[in-house]
Amino acid sequence: MTQPPEGQAVRAIDVIRKKRDGHELSRAEIEYLVRAYTDAEIPDYQVSAWLMAVILRGLTRTETSVLTDAMLHSGDVLDLSEFSAKKVDKHSTGGVGDKTSLVLAPLVAAGGLIVPMISGRGLGHTGGTLDKLESIPGFNVNLSIPEFRRVLKACGCAMIGQTSEIAPADRKLYALRDVTGTVESPYLICASIMSKKLAEGIDALVLDVKTGSGAFMKKDEDAEFLAELMVETGERMGKSVIALITNMDQPLGLCVGNSLEVAEVTEVLRGGGPEDLKELCLELAARMFQLGGTADTVAQGKTQAKQLITSGKALETFRQMVALQGGDSRVIDDPGLLPRAKYTQEVGATKSGYVTAMDCEGVGIACVVLGGGREKKEDAVDPAVGIVLHRKLGDSVTAGEPFCTVHFNSETKGARAKELLLQSYRITDAPLEHKKKLVHRVIRGSGI
Amino acid sequence: MTQPPEGQAVRAIDVIRKKRDGHELSRAEIEYLVRAYTDAEIPDYQVSAWLMAVILRGLTRTETSVLTDAMLHSGDVLDLSEFSAKKVDKHSTGGVGDKTSLVLAPLVAAGGLIVPMISGRGLGHTGGTLDKLESIPGFNVNLSIPEFRRVLKACGCAMIGQTSEIAPADRKLYALRDVTGTVESPYLICASIMSKKLAEGIDALVLDVKTGSGAFMKKDEDAEFLAELMVETGERMGKSVIALITNMDQPLGLCVGNSLEVAEVTEVLRGGGPEDLKELCLELAARMFQLGGTADTVAQGKTQAKQLITSGKALETFRQMVALQGGDSRVIDDPGLLPRAKYTQEVGATKSGYVTAMDCEGVGIACVVLGGGREKKEDAVDPAVGIVLHRKLGDSVTAGEPFCTVHFNSETKGARAKELLLQSYRITDAPLEHKKKLVHRVIRGSGI
Repeated sequence: MTQPPEGQAVRAIDVIRKKRDGHELSRAEIEYLVRAYTDAEIPDYQVSAWLMAVILRGLTRTETSVLTDAMLHSGDVLDLSEFSAKKVDKHSTGGVGDKTSLVLAPLVAAGGLIVPMISGRGLGHTGGTLDKLESIPGFNVNLSIPEFRRVLKACGCAMIGQTSEIAPADRKLYALRDVTGTVESPYLICASIMSKKLAEGIDALVLDVKTGSGAFMKKDEDAEFLAELMVETGERMGKSVIALITNMDQPLGLCVGNSLEVAEVTEVLRGGGPEDLKELCLELAARMFQLGGTADTVAQGKTQAKQLITSGKALETFRQMVALQGGDSRVIDDPGLLPRAKYTQEVGATKSGYVTAMDCEGVGIACVVLGGGREKKEDAVDPAVGIVLHRKLGDSVTAGEPFCTVHFNSETKGARAKELLLQSYRITDAPLEHKKKLVHRVIRGSGI
Repeated sequence: MTQPPEGQAVRAIDVIRKKRDGHELSRAEIEYLVRAYTDAEIPDYQVSAWLMAVILRGLTRTETSVLTDAMLHSGDVLDLSEFSAKKVDKHSTGGVGDKTSLVLAPLVAAGGLIVPMISGRGLGHTGGTLDKLESIPGFNVNLSIPEFRRVLKACGCAMIGQTSEIAPADRKLYALRDVTGTVESPYLICASIMSKKLAEGIDALVLDVKTGSGAFMKKDEDAEFLAELMVETGERMGKSVIALITNMDQPLGLCVGNSLEVAEVTEVLRGGGPEDLKELCLELAARMFQLGGTADTVAQGKTQAKQLITSGKALETFRQMVALQGGDSRVIDDPGLLPRAKYTQEVGATKSGYVTAMDCEGVGIACVVLGGGREKKEDAVDPAVGIVLHRKLGDSVTAGEPFCTVHFNSETKGARAKELLLQSYRITDAPLEHKKKLVHRVIRGSGI
């Protein structure tokens, strides 16, 4: 490999060759590539060749954090130093029925921390926080940065979509990765997630890395590798980061679909709701409180979270945030005001027995089929449709008894979703022997 | 990896992912990629990602021959069935001072075979056949296909550049590889060379795969791997192919530079010229005669070649071809009519001893520096400049005695070239212990 002489300008072709040949790139080389690509000085075809070399050669920890840093600084980094409280956030790698963000933002803000949450939309079989929020009539996720600050100041949390000022390199790189088979690299996933999250100006981050049949990473070891990479990258960039590896072998909670999930969020914020969803919210909130300094231990953090729910403070913060972002906050007390599907139909079990396996991705796809998610980025989402599960892993079921209810607006789509749901449940005579724990493992940096 | 359902159209993204994950591509997938890229249906950025995956994952022998076949059929394949004699050609992977093509085309045509030679230009440190030919005043390498046929009919050989009808996929792919760090793959090099050569409508091909300090492949094992790949690919496509692995640790012959090399060609065709150049021309011609059926053994082929030189038939055929392609054939008897540089300067040895190593690439670069080659495709070439070597590997030299002469048109360039040449010779007290053979190995298919 020919190296350009010392002091000479970095050239894209040399950076591509160097990574192709398995060598570690310098800070200058990575920063050049990210900056020049963002500024359209180097063409897509050179960057896609480089991305493929990264997929197959990998990046070192140093390269990963330098790439994250370069992508982070490709745009604005919010300065939230006007807030004396710690700024914390949570990020999930995506799952089915995962509505924890909607619970956590108001819950943790009610505990005195600042939660400046920038989220994404659903794609493929997973749901997206922005789509769920937009099922609340009037809710505006497209706040300007000054409006975002104003909501944060008023209630401690705000939830918006990525703006063009935040990590533009990631937007451009993600679009290219999507069409060049270069999505599936832990290094590139890490840099993409961490650059966007750290651009929020946060002090600490709790990561929820999903594993299982409904997650992007089906294997525990892949989820753990990514989690460790993100924790180390965050640490190298001076942030406190904890990652929980959590189970996604079945949807989280009982509701899948935007309006249905918002209603379930209000249940949890009132102290009710399904056990697994409550448990995960408490686990994640406890870590956010711990990193934010309002709790010394996870146990204290859970107690704090429970009290904020019992006292109604968390629900009240949610109500405030919804109103401040233009949403109809009456839905919180009357979820019937949320968009409702025209039809519902129960899906009955074809045999008696126990639910011993679920194709969680299949349930997610059933919701997409109903119109509740998107196959392509430009697809519109129907907020009303979805699925309510009556049986989950380990539950017994009698033949003919409904194991879920489909909410739909089109009979054809409803029928297709019902088929998918029937295929997604495995019902066996023998009960489930071993139920996986919701939180598999906690990965934290050396400093935490 | 998600496979598209049976019978569904091939998608570029799936082909990229499949190669990324190390799987063998089907004929339909490779043919789609080549056709759709040639027709601009898929963008550069997808193909460059695929090329990088090929660089790092490799191709199977079947994939390589399917790719070669698809590239071959992306354009016209010449039909030379009007000629009853066998159509044979020779291709070299490129070196310094390699003017064998100019000897072989008329020599083998004089022996009764048809040599429809489509060649390239010099790039980097290596020279190109077209540049050498164009140093003959008036010589036209840009013949149309009907003109090419006419010259072939008249004298049995013709030498032209690649036309837009020949392997357009290779042109497009090569341009993309050049800027995306995806040149150095034996599979892609094989497909590029073989698709262009087989488009000439030939029956048989002799490959000269160079190895050593002046070759693209510095290591013997890389040269052998490429040679075996090309021989097997040719066989799979029904052609007779032999590859010679030949030494390029020093320039071939004594002249480097376009006019100087043409003059050396005429010496060889008259029965003179440097030993190594004569030897390689005889080795290659003998194989061409063998594959073309005019000789049963290599020894017979060499005898045939020597007779064609001694009788003057080879030189006469060269004269005819030069005239038929518009060139001033008087240069053959009077090389002084070829472009000559304004200045010459001898380069003297700084110490006495033996030439025990040469940086052959360095000699090639010295010629580029003089203006005799090109660093970028669009550079113009000065036909007059170059280097004449007076000492080669193993020769003794006395301090102050000239080991080469530089022919130059610019004093600055001449001085830079002289510096490079001084660095390119290693002169030691002890003589050269082991001189490598010119022909390292011969690789032939199972059918030959």
